[in-house]
Amino acid sequence: MKFTRFKQDGNVQYGVVTNEGIKPINGNVFGEWEYIGETVSADQVELLAPVEPNKVIGIGANYVGNKEELPSSLPDIPVFFFKPASSVVGPETDVVIPEAIEEVKFESELAVVIGKEAKNISKEEVLDHVFGYTVGNDVTAPQFFHEAGHWTLGKAFDTFTPLGPVVETELDPSTVFVKADVNGEQKQNSPTNLMIVPLLEMVSYLSRVMTLQPGDVILTGSPLGAHFVGDGDVVECKIDEIGTLKNKLIKLPVAVQS
Amino acid sequence: MKFTRFKQDGNVQYGVVTNEGIKPINGNVFGEWEYIGETVSADQVELLAPVEPNKVIGIGANYVGNKEELPSSLPDIPVFFFKPASSVVGPETDVVIPEAIEEVKFESELAVVIGKEAKNISKEEVLDHVFGYTVGNDVTAPQFFHEAGHWTLGKAFDTFTPLGPVVETELDPSTVFVKADVNGEQKQNSPTNLMIVPLLEMVSYLSRVMTLQPGDVILTGSPLGAHFVGDGDVVECKIDEIGTLKNKLIKLPVAVQS
Repeated sequence: MKFTRFKQDGNVQYGVVTNEGIKPINGNVFGEWEYIGETVSADQVELLAPVEPNKVIGIGANYVGNKEELPSSLPDIPVFFFKPASSVVGPETDVVIPEAIEEVKFESELAVVIGKEAKNISKEEVLDHVFGYTVGNDVTAPQFFHEAGHWTLGKAFDTFTPLGPVVETELDPSTVFVKADVNGEQKQNSPTNLMIVPLLEMVSYLSRVMTLQPGDVILTGSPLGAHFVGDGDVVECKIDEIGTLKNKLIKLPVAVQS
Repeated sequence: MKFTRFKQDGNVQYGVVTNEGIKPINGNVFGEWEYIGETVSADQVELLAPVEPNKVIGIGANYVGNKEELPSSLPDIPVFFFKPASSVVGPETDVVIPEAIEEVKFESELAVVIGKEAKNISKEEVLDHVFGYTVGNDVTAPQFFHEAGHWTLGKAFDTFTPLGPVVETELDPSTVFVKADVNGEQKQNSPTNLMIVPLLEMVSYLSRVMTLQPGDVILTGSPLGAHFVGDGDVVECKIDEIGTLKNKLIKLPVAVQS
């Protein structure tokens, strides 16, 4: 089932994507909900990020180029980082590059959406706590990385976390390919079994540090091939079974120094 | 005015602390609200973190020992980090040290609570967007810092961000002292004018990266004197004009490795 979130006539609603269009729903997408109102066409509405996360957690440099490069043991402490909810936008929304930044990197990623509170869960329990999967673009401005290794600011700008187009609840995450096109040319295309910290281990690990809550999003890392892009470039992050998350980059004069 | 949040008979409410006790209120603490119901005694209720932040933002190593050590210019890129909302607890709540961690550091801090959405504001505009101030304890497990400089996990454990006891809306943050006692012995006591990145510059800078929203909390850094503490230690972070945030540390057998 593909869940979407959209705005129509100023109202924000969740819906289910069907062959006939989007069927609006009412209730808690992670719990009890029901269909309401009339099916609408995706053309008639503004698609938003399909989920409203409290936490967005990313992992650094989590893909190798081929299976032979996978390490024999997992890192003791993976590189995790938070992105603020204020950086989340939906499909078709422009990613704004502030004036002080020349270029940004796109990073197409499989994004896990938590459906049930998770604390201290084993990897065998992870899938019981996952609601579904969407596509994320972990837009990054390395220019704002601190020299001592802190990535916080470089990943935190408004619009730097496109998510969408839908949350697919019926997906086997171990069999999909994470892809990205820039201006129509393929730049990333890797199967998820090239992750250094695999998805189940990643979610279990995080749950042993912090309580994961419904709606929380975990970006599982980006395949090799990400590079710098700039004003006017169009990035399409895609996982065939979920859909395409398309965003244009634009440069606006927004000062970042006081 | 001192705002508090508390639980009584299973209900969570905001209130205002007066000489007679806590007066419960109804509405939006950042906007329109009204007094409701009967004044209650603080002894009768469980005090919670006085605010429910979406974002908690911290700044690294932001105090010097005396004014002569203040740098002549501000850093281009300060060390900022996020702490997850899931790590926030209130006063009198135990801070849980997971089994894999030997000891943690306490860090007493002046915490800014945003009251009005702030995006691209100058330092002169900051106070118009501040709701008030509380005390924070930025509990930290350096053992979970990544060797390449990422602090995320070491600051993200559940219960690692005590906030409270109240949000004081009538405070001049430039004149207060940030203090901490451990087991009754004073360990920190510095005026806020020893901050390397001053409060107004800090909030302005952050607002130029990301939209700050009502309820967001900015931890403004901890004075010199923080050190490791462990099972059974009692940490009291205090700013006289706000109050004392007292939390006991306890060690529970919670595994953090899968």
